[in-house]
Amino acid sequence: MNWAIFGILISLVSFGVAAYFYCWVKALPTAEGSMSDIADLIRKGAFTFISREYRILGIFVAIVSFLILLFFPQPFWNGNISTNLGMVGAYILGSALSGVAGYIGISIATIANVKAATAAREGLAPSFMAGFRGGAVMGMAVVGTSLLGAAILYIVSQDPDIVLAFSFGASSLALFAKAGGGIFTKTADIAADLIGKVELGIPEDDPRNPAVIADNVGDNVGDVAGMGADLFDSNIAAIAAAMVIAIPLGEIDLLFCYASLGLLASIIGVLFSKVGKNGNPSAALNRGTYLTCGVFVILTFAATLLFNLQFRLWTATIVGMIAGVIIGFTSDYFTGDDMKPVKKVAEASKSGPAFTILSGMSYGLLSSFPSLAGIGAASLIAYKICEPLGGSYHVMGISMAAVGMLSIVGMIMSNDAYGPIVDNARGLAEMCGLGDQVLEITDELDAAGNTSKAITKGFAIGAAGLTVIALLAAFREIVFEYTNEVLTFDMMDPLVFFGALIGTAVPAVFSAMLMMGVNRNSQIMVKEIHHQFDTIEGLREGKEGVQPDYEKCIDIATIGAVKELIPAGLTAIVITLIIGFTGGVKAIGGFLAGNILSGLLLAMMMSNAGGLWDNAKKYIESGNCGGKGSDAHKAAVIGDTVGDPFKDTAGPSINTQITVVSLVSSLAAILFITYSIF
Amino acid sequence: MNWAIFGILISLVSFGVAAYFYCWVKALPTAEGSMSDIADLIRKGAFTFISREYRILGIFVAIVSFLILLFFPQPFWNGNISTNLGMVGAYILGSALSGVAGYIGISIATIANVKAATAAREGLAPSFMAGFRGGAVMGMAVVGTSLLGAAILYIVSQDPDIVLAFSFGASSLALFAKAGGGIFTKTADIAADLIGKVELGIPEDDPRNPAVIADNVGDNVGDVAGMGADLFDSNIAAIAAAMVIAIPLGEIDLLFCYASLGLLASIIGVLFSKVGKNGNPSAALNRGTYLTCGVFVILTFAATLLFNLQFRLWTATIVGMIAGVIIGFTSDYFTGDDMKPVKKVAEASKSGPAFTILSGMSYGLLSSFPSLAGIGAASLIAYKICEPLGGSYHVMGISMAAVGMLSIVGMIMSNDAYGPIVDNARGLAEMCGLGDQVLEITDELDAAGNTSKAITKGFAIGAAGLTVIALLAAFREIVFEYTNEVLTFDMMDPLVFFGALIGTAVPAVFSAMLMMGVNRNSQIMVKEIHHQFDTIEGLREGKEGVQPDYEKCIDIATIGAVKELIPAGLTAIVITLIIGFTGGVKAIGGFLAGNILSGLLLAMMMSNAGGLWDNAKKYIESGNCGGKGSDAHKAAVIGDTVGDPFKDTAGPSINTQITVVSLVSSLAAILFITYSIF
Repeated sequence: MNWAIFGILISLVSFGVAAYFYCWVKALPTAEGSMSDIADLIRKGAFTFISREYRILGIFVAIVSFLILLFFPQPFWNGNISTNLGMVGAYILGSALSGVAGYIGISIATIANVKAATAAREGLAPSFMAGFRGGAVMGMAVVGTSLLGAAILYIVSQDPDIVLAFSFGASSLALFAKAGGGIFTKTADIAADLIGKVELGIPEDDPRNPAVIADNVGDNVGDVAGMGADLFDSNIAAIAAAMVIAIPLGEIDLLFCYASLGLLASIIGVLFSKVGKNGNPSAALNRGTYLTCGVFVILTFAATLLFNLQFRLWTATIVGMIAGVIIGFTSDYFTGDDMKPVKKVAEASKSGPAFTILSGMSYGLLSSFPSLAGIGAASLIAYKICEPLGGSYHVMGISMAAVGMLSIVGMIMSNDAYGPIVDNARGLAEMCGLGDQVLEITDELDAAGNTSKAITKGFAIGAAGLTVIALLAAFREIVFEYTNEVLTFDMMDPLVFFGALIGTAVPAVFSAMLMMGVNRNSQIMVKEIHHQFDTIEGLREGKEGVQPDYEKCIDIATIGAVKELIPAGLTAIVITLIIGFTGGVKAIGGFLAGNILSGLLLAMMMSNAGGLWDNAKKYIESGNCGGKGSDAHKAAVIGDTVGDPFKDTAGPSINTQITVVSLVSSLAAILFITYSIF
Repeated sequence: MNWAIFGILISLVSFGVAAYFYCWVKALPTAEGSMSDIADLIRKGAFTFISREYRILGIFVAIVSFLILLFFPQPFWNGNISTNLGMVGAYILGSALSGVAGYIGISIATIANVKAATAAREGLAPSFMAGFRGGAVMGMAVVGTSLLGAAILYIVSQDPDIVLAFSFGASSLALFAKAGGGIFTKTADIAADLIGKVELGIPEDDPRNPAVIADNVGDNVGDVAGMGADLFDSNIAAIAAAMVIAIPLGEIDLLFCYASLGLLASIIGVLFSKVGKNGNPSAALNRGTYLTCGVFVILTFAATLLFNLQFRLWTATIVGMIAGVIIGFTSDYFTGDDMKPVKKVAEASKSGPAFTILSGMSYGLLSSFPSLAGIGAASLIAYKICEPLGGSYHVMGISMAAVGMLSIVGMIMSNDAYGPIVDNARGLAEMCGLGDQVLEITDELDAAGNTSKAITKGFAIGAAGLTVIALLAAFREIVFEYTNEVLTFDMMDPLVFFGALIGTAVPAVFSAMLMMGVNRNSQIMVKEIHHQFDTIEGLREGKEGVQPDYEKCIDIATIGAVKELIPAGLTAIVITLIIGFTGGVKAIGGFLAGNILSGLLLAMMMSNAGGLWDNAKKYIESGNCGGKGSDAHKAAVIGDTVGDPFKDTAGPSINTQITVVSLVSSLAAILFITYSIF
């Protein structure tokens, strides 16, 4: 059985499901009145940003394509120009598919938000379904596209360099899309919150607030398009790393079999996800995840038995999946609003914002332990299980653990995209005055989205950790083929250690640059909002017919994000090249190791602390510790503001940064060997 | 020439200088009035805490001594009980000397504070001299004691295990002393600031504030005794790591020669440190540091020439010293109040506390890059310079770089202890109403202390980084001697990688636990202060003769700190043992590597962000961005509060945590080999 073909078939099925959901959502009614006008504004804003962002990224892709053509994997005068050309093609394909994934996400999300808001008038269940099926369009499209791309690539060419170039295209685009979207969304979110909630004491989505539409646009470009590009990239990178190792082992069938069955399991999970009339949306999302996991285990077990696949690799895959669930649980514990950490931070907020920050930061730091231990244990177990098979099966084990962790990514992505859709629906309901009962429903749907977002990030970060170990092995493999020398990255080697120190600092520099970008832009937007309140008469009082200039705020966020999205990622890439060309492949080995370690630590800390602060604020808003308007609430809002770029800009971009520098290293390996100083 | 004897002689000279300064300071006049009463309260509080802390630590030392007797370096039934006994002796000596260093520091600091406050009436110069010479007593005593201990130990026994046990005694005591002191001082500082500055808007050291004396006690037990124990430990660890490598190479003379000349250079630097009548105290401190560096370079160069020592090792030593200065400059740039970061953070504070936190955190993360790069470059250069000498000279090079970085520690420690003394003097001047002119002088002296404190931390953290690389080599050496197998810590080995992931998470967990301790305790103290203001009549209004219950607050800080000082450090040690007994020596290698990398990152980030927030607040208080009482000021106070445990509790404890787990690993190496599961 040719499992790559099977993968293509399953992808097509997932596109069918996506199309069905798309039509289903589109056919739902839209509330009369101002809603479609506002929805149009959001939609227009999102597409304006995306097209400006893609224009910049197009230039980037063109420049990199030219560089690849000249130099990668070898300078064209030394090697074979057709290899270079093939890499350019694969790189462009990866970039383009990543862009398509983001585009599809925005298309559906900016429709589903209105539908979910409208449906909330009928009750929780219809609104949930609109949000969830909207998200599922994204989930199915993203995973289908990545599997399709990988399968076609495999059928066309089995050269590891080509595969890595494809993955690099997806990852580098994801890096910038996430950074850009993350800066956009948090610029608007912070500015809107600071003026609305803190200064004026008006509700979150009050239409008087000039930043409120920009905030809703941000949900789409950051959380939908950005996160979509990220999970697309994670999935591609995991499959690509596994392919590089699987091809020489002749285990490519197993890889495509499991990846396809993972998508199939997700399709089943998505189709069966439902919430009872007054059911708990959080529980519904989790049920879907567990169902998908269960189906995946059964299907892969059966396939392994039936087609006589390697059982040790199956075990490694399942170990990875379980580790993903454990990391998800950890995120859930540290960020869930019925758990101790959230309550403790809310409690601490009563003593002032400094305690909100300190306690949240402490929990964020603590939360890194179980996740890192889980990733470490998964890689160790996967390695040890597959070691008896000999050859490079041990590394294949680790990379199958990454594939296993991402096996249910279709379901995860659906849950994740659900979040910003219902968040938007909440905004629309408030802006269009659909009434308190509707707001209550959308609030509940929104809170469920927050937790599932934290879990998604856990998966994405954990999978990146395992993938990058596999990529490190792929890097070593490439060096071995070229030099016939088995590289060891001994931490006692001063070059390795030097690289590790620099690699450790890179995620810190990268996330600092992103946060500074958000900082700068939201200060500009805050000024603009003050200006509007000062100059537009009747705006503050909410006089009938007086509207703020929403588009000015969307403009500020767009211009700022487009300006800031390149430098941070480029810095990481340039430092990688500098280390490679000075310290050579040994320094790069250390560099990547240090980069993974500190990257995972910071990513977990930031994502979980951010989610924790957000939910602590929500916990207080729901009437605890003094409730809305109390000092504790003010402190919690400050915590939430600090957490915003932590969890939605810097934190979740770090895993992409790790993947990108790993891929850059692998692609430039031969150049480093040939031209490095040491 | 026997350089160990020379070391003993120089130590005695340094004790002489310390005694001279002690008498000199003691002979200065004390202001009449309430000052000596308040000073007595501070002194009593400090000694009460220290004696309670030492009682707990005594029990800890007794238990560990018993364990060492039974199991280290080998279970007594396998090995030689007399080795175990020798180790117990060395361990107790290290602990005891570390305790003595802290005790001396508190003795002089609680005298010098009154003298400096009194002298401030005569002008800046006399007050500076009282503070500086008080600090120098500590500096001379700490470095003299550590050199004396190491030299005696070398003369008595040259067994590396004994040397490491001695260092472990110093480090483990430092770990707890710093954690305990750090929790005490920040508990009081935060509580005093929150109530005084934020709630009531009264000045920093207003005598109505019940926490104000506890705050001053905290400066002594945290910044003097804690930091003293830390630098004592860093110095010992650097020398011990170098000894383990130098003894088989026959380079012990060079080691003692340089260490002794470093102390001599510091003595000269300290004796010549002076400030002009209206001179700049910051410049005076820096001049002293540069003078010491210059003298050290000249003296060691001459000695190397004269006694025909190894020039490559000399170069490595100087490289280390230069790296230390670079790291110091970095800290100075990121925390200095005339630099861009402080101004930017002050500026951002105008938009609210969330921006204070975000921008400070971003700069903190950025600041890790030059420091980590500096450490990496120093170790790489030192290694490469000494590699041609063959044998384990390359590792000796790295450890001499650490010795070089700490060569001027006598001067550094003097500058550092100066800080809390003048801080206390400021408090006394305010509490006893010495007038605005005196306050202005003590404020200026205090600000200079803040910057020198940031530089000191940079040195301590950087030196720990280099020392631990040397300790990692020592660890490998021990394993080699026992198993005849050269260990490599290849990051592609799943055991090493597993260890590295756990090692990465440990500093995060450790610092989170410390910060949570501060959090808990200061909330208790805030409650107590509220209670006193509510129940003691006339306190709020400052009625003549009405005094708060200062001792209650001292009590709360003491009890809290004593309770919290053990768990965090013990957790780090226990995790090390668990990893060692499950994953064996390979996992420990990875564990230590991950621990160094993330430890350096977090330590630099926290220390610099904390110092930055403190000085941003001071910058605003001196009239910028709206000045005292403005919204920007309130935001900056929140930033400062978050920064307090960052920079004075967690951040500077991390380097000791790194050293301790390295030493534990080396001591337990044979046990790990014999009994580990993998």
